[in-house]
Amino acid sequence: MITKNQMQIKAEPGRQELFVVREFDAPREKVYRAFTDPKLVVQWLGPKNMTMTIDYYDCTTGGKYRYIHTDPNGNAYGFNGVVHEATEPERVIQTFEFEGMPERGHVVLDSAVFDDLPDGRSKVTIHSVYGSVADRDGMIQSGMEHGMREGFDRLDDLLDNQ
Amino acid sequence: MITKNQMQIKAEPGRQELFVVREFDAPREKVYRAFTDPKLVVQWLGPKNMTMTIDYYDCTTGGKYRYIHTDPNGNAYGFNGVVHEATEPERVIQTFEFEGMPERGHVVLDSAVFDDLPDGRSKVTIHSVYGSVADRDGMIQSGMEHGMREGFDRLDDLLDNQ
Repeated sequence: MITKNQMQIKAEPGRQELFVVREFDAPREKVYRAFTDPKLVVQWLGPKNMTMTIDYYDCTTGGKYRYIHTDPNGNAYGFNGVVHEATEPERVIQTFEFEGMPERGHVVLDSAVFDDLPDGRSKVTIHSVYGSVADRDGMIQSGMEHGMREGFDRLDDLLDNQ
Repeated sequence: MITKNQMQIKAEPGRQELFVVREFDAPREKVYRAFTDPKLVVQWLGPKNMTMTIDYYDCTTGGKYRYIHTDPNGNAYGFNGVVHEATEPERVIQTFEFEGMPERGHVVLDSAVFDDLPDGRSKVTIHSVYGSVADRDGMIQSGMEHGMREGFDRLDDLLDNQ
């Protein structure tokens, strides 16, 4: 499916942050729920060839989450974090850590802002702040962008069918 | 009291992070407890002229905290965050938000690492990552450094008397 909603990623050289912007053909209330309700998140988050399993997922202020992506060869990739703020339907601020790093402690601070657009559409802006430029560049080189694009395309389908 | 343990702060121009380093005349186990046990934290954290009140304080992995500093004129300043990781006695990674900002959402990611030094001493390195350079510079200009220095001097006394 060709969609007009292409993900934009902005990562200036030498900085320890990046921005991801994606529009959706649904109001922000609906997109916010798809980002925060584990029954919906599990249907779209991550690359197409991965199976997502939720260990726990409480996306409310003070909550925490952990999930696992498993590829067709059975390799498992864990992710976890805590939720600093979840203000429906406008903003989620949470930490994020990929458990497959060579050492623990490489934590990202993600802020997702949900804005309404005309005609029942909306825009999500994710601001990710890393512990270092190297952490950010490593995340980009890991294929993060491809996985996010595929996930958002799946989310388009989910929003269409709800 | 003149102490040999001076706080060092490193904040390179144009970056959205800063580092604070402070040594203590106590092993890291003892310093870690002083940073994470609310009965101890309340005795030293913050400027000398402030009274600290704890709303809630659970510095364990997945926990959360909120406290209030009140100055002699009765002005109250609230702070809160969530704890991504607390690994005794070596590391705490948590979010931090000053509730007195003009708008919410200006969240800091703080990582504190506790290292032992020879002769029963230790060193704490705090790495703070901000949402923007402006947020970091604003925090520095707010008098953060002075308040931290006073707090650490009080912590020296607390560690001496334990």
